[in-house]
Amino acid sequence: MARRGRRTRGAAPEVSREVNYRHLRNPFPVMNLVSEDEVQAVHAAALGILAEDGIKVLLPEARQMYRQGGARVRGEMVHIGPEMVAEALRTAPRSFPLRAGARDRDVVMELGALTFQPGAGCPHATDLTRGRRAGSARDYRELVQITQAFDVLHLIPPLVEAQDVPPALRHYEFMRSQLALSDKVPFIYSRGAGQVAESFEMLRQFRGLSEAEFAAEARVYTIINTNSPRQLDVPMARGVIDFARAGQVSVITPFTLMGAMAPITPSGAVTLSHAEALAAITLGQLARPGAPMMYGTFTSNVDMKSGAPAFGTPEHFKANLLAGQLARLIGLPWRSATGSAANLSDVQAAHETQFGLWGCLMAGATMVVHAAGWLEGGLSISYEKMITDLEVLQMVAELCAATPADTAREAVAEVAPGGHFFAAAHTMARYQTEFYPSFSWDLSNHGTWSERGAVDTTHRATAIWQEVLTRPGPQV
Amino acid sequence: MARRGRRTRGAAPEVSREVNYRHLRNPFPVMNLVSEDEVQAVHAAALGILAEDGIKVLLPEARQMYRQGGARVRGEMVHIGPEMVAEALRTAPRSFPLRAGARDRDVVMELGALTFQPGAGCPHATDLTRGRRAGSARDYRELVQITQAFDVLHLIPPLVEAQDVPPALRHYEFMRSQLALSDKVPFIYSRGAGQVAESFEMLRQFRGLSEAEFAAEARVYTIINTNSPRQLDVPMARGVIDFARAGQVSVITPFTLMGAMAPITPSGAVTLSHAEALAAITLGQLARPGAPMMYGTFTSNVDMKSGAPAFGTPEHFKANLLAGQLARLIGLPWRSATGSAANLSDVQAAHETQFGLWGCLMAGATMVVHAAGWLEGGLSISYEKMITDLEVLQMVAELCAATPADTAREAVAEVAPGGHFFAAAHTMARYQTEFYPSFSWDLSNHGTWSERGAVDTTHRATAIWQEVLTRPGPQV
Repeated sequence: MARRGRRTRGAAPEVSREVNYRHLRNPFPVMNLVSEDEVQAVHAAALGILAEDGIKVLLPEARQMYRQGGARVRGEMVHIGPEMVAEALRTAPRSFPLRAGARDRDVVMELGALTFQPGAGCPHATDLTRGRRAGSARDYRELVQITQAFDVLHLIPPLVEAQDVPPALRHYEFMRSQLALSDKVPFIYSRGAGQVAESFEMLRQFRGLSEAEFAAEARVYTIINTNSPRQLDVPMARGVIDFARAGQVSVITPFTLMGAMAPITPSGAVTLSHAEALAAITLGQLARPGAPMMYGTFTSNVDMKSGAPAFGTPEHFKANLLAGQLARLIGLPWRSATGSAANLSDVQAAHETQFGLWGCLMAGATMVVHAAGWLEGGLSISYEKMITDLEVLQMVAELCAATPADTAREAVAEVAPGGHFFAAAHTMARYQTEFYPSFSWDLSNHGTWSERGAVDTTHRATAIWQEVLTRPGPQV
Repeated sequence: MARRGRRTRGAAPEVSREVNYRHLRNPFPVMNLVSEDEVQAVHAAALGILAEDGIKVLLPEARQMYRQGGARVRGEMVHIGPEMVAEALRTAPRSFPLRAGARDRDVVMELGALTFQPGAGCPHATDLTRGRRAGSARDYRELVQITQAFDVLHLIPPLVEAQDVPPALRHYEFMRSQLALSDKVPFIYSRGAGQVAESFEMLRQFRGLSEAEFAAEARVYTIINTNSPRQLDVPMARGVIDFARAGQVSVITPFTLMGAMAPITPSGAVTLSHAEALAAITLGQLARPGAPMMYGTFTSNVDMKSGAPAFGTPEHFKANLLAGQLARLIGLPWRSATGSAANLSDVQAAHETQFGLWGCLMAGATMVVHAAGWLEGGLSISYEKMITDLEVLQMVAELCAATPADTAREAVAEVAPGGHFFAAAHTMARYQTEFYPSFSWDLSNHGTWSERGAVDTTHRATAIWQEVLTRPGPQV
């Protein structure tokens, strides 16, 4: 969708609307939830949790590494002192490139950069033609194709589970589809050392890299979820260590639902999340000082009536603001997320997702996950919601570009009072390129829209994703 | 909706979730579109338009007032010098109270304050039970009731045209309904001196005020739309003069669609809008120096394929940012608006409206108009969209309150690794009041939601507005 208007009808001159959605900087002023002193207090409280309460680490090798780094280990509990955390934050890079399959798909991860990802990790897929179903390899491939087709999505996430592929073979399917259907940065699940090593090897061979070349630069990422509160399980600890040693990216993301696996207040939940993230970042830096890692947060609240997770709420927004302050305090690139608890792609889903998105944007997130398609708190991914959320992400990307100041003084003088600017020279020179052209909104009037069948946006989106799937893939 | 949880079931203790949506301050950091120098250049260009190109003023009395104030008048064209504008900006108050029917409904209009209004001026009403129809007096009354029921809506706008009431009598119907059904600040259309005077008189008598008391404080407002480009018609000029002389509020709002009645670039269109607003503000200050007036902007773009107006677009957002900069430059309270071009309350409508809302919020708007229910670029107002947009406005209002920093250190120490916080003392003390309780979202899981009929948000909203209409009105 990057360069529109290239193909014009007949002999009309070609007019390009040049946009660059591939490399975005966050243009929004950051918003703080609490004072600078209070952020320092949250950081100090997180350090206190790690030193005094400790974190349970289930992988013996990881406990051994923590111990050798100076931590106090009692059984499975690891108590990490502030000086160890400080050393990890000193060695963790504040900026690093992530190499994609094509140079202009490379992204730099650092505070100030802005990248988007569609929904991740959904067991189900849903669309209006085939209904809600267990995710399949076909769904995965199709969703990679859609992700590839929009420049405003910068990395490939684990969109949907391929439940028709045996778990032991699923990583082959995921890696093959990502490499064949996309030239964007791929994702690997941390589901054990074997799967990770095999996935690295597939990527290395596909990109034609020596082992040294592969180790030299980050080319793939994983998400590490701690088992909140205060626990790091075997595959997650394994993943942190293996990705760090390979020079690849761990995105450390505690999933801390306020009132469930975390304290009920936004600041309480983020304090716990911060502690857990610092523990895992410390492990990665012990494995390989300087390993590229991202600080991550996924803190939202539960509905206290039902206990169900909620996303895109005021509390989710506030947690993002505080987490962004902590990210700036420690200086690492920061992953956050929007989301939706709605059961279908409707008005609630749209509002939750956009509200959560603005929380990420105003908190200064480097990577915004679940930014398109994610429904049911992650239990399903909707093809139609992918399309309509993408419209919003492109609208945000439009705001990332500088806008020239142009007072149009001559045009104003040219048009008589009560007249119109449709035919003004100033308009004619710009009308093909001045405005962002939406691709799923319908701006026709009520009569025309009714005559065309009164189709709502979600139903229009079906035809759009179907068309996207017919497009040729990348030159790989 | 302000104080929830008061009525609890059985003998449970009463727990209040105290919120104050009636008096909001904008907590969001302002975002600038252009540099300070460029804002000054836009202001200078607007002054140049007024002095050199001039504005066409159709009311002879207004031209006479401009001439006496020092303007050069040639035929219907009025050329206003920068010193006249500067004097008007000197006398226009930067802050003034607007008195409602109850003291805790009063609002103060100044930069930094934040007020919301539902959609205004719609010829049609629509809901899922009665369909789309010409607006009626009943629709108007019902929409005033809904506006009254939610504290997050601060003023009553002209929600819908009562097309079943003859135009000459419509202002009686509007005024009677506003006064009987709401204690919020009412609105009067500037549709001629007679209607305005009669409406003032109804308000004065209903509130039991002497003429001196009425003239002493602002209690009602009107919206003045210039006839862009560069034209002020008879009823609008009349309205500016009559409201100023009565000490009541004119909200000066050019409606400048980029590429239609204004230049195609956001800055070009806002430059023209700024010039027109300054012209009308100057007229009001000539009529009565110190009269309370608001600076207003409604600048969006047209779809260049169809010529149809679009709202909640990136260009609309950018225009808001620049207009907010100009509002801060001149220091007056500032009215802006979101909007939607969608033909029904669907995902497009939700996204456009929320996107435009964030543009207003990040631009520092004092009054956000069309913030709930507005569809089809203002051709209809949707009862269901009123409800779902209100959910978003309440979520924004939640962000206006300070959030205490609370690291929940004891709670974290209390819960074992891998445990949960549901029963923690820290949670139990807060679970009834900590989170914003949505009233139209459905957070149940897919199974429960399906068993309950798989109802989407818009259809749930029908039951909500129907319930709201059964609530008792204000004590007036």
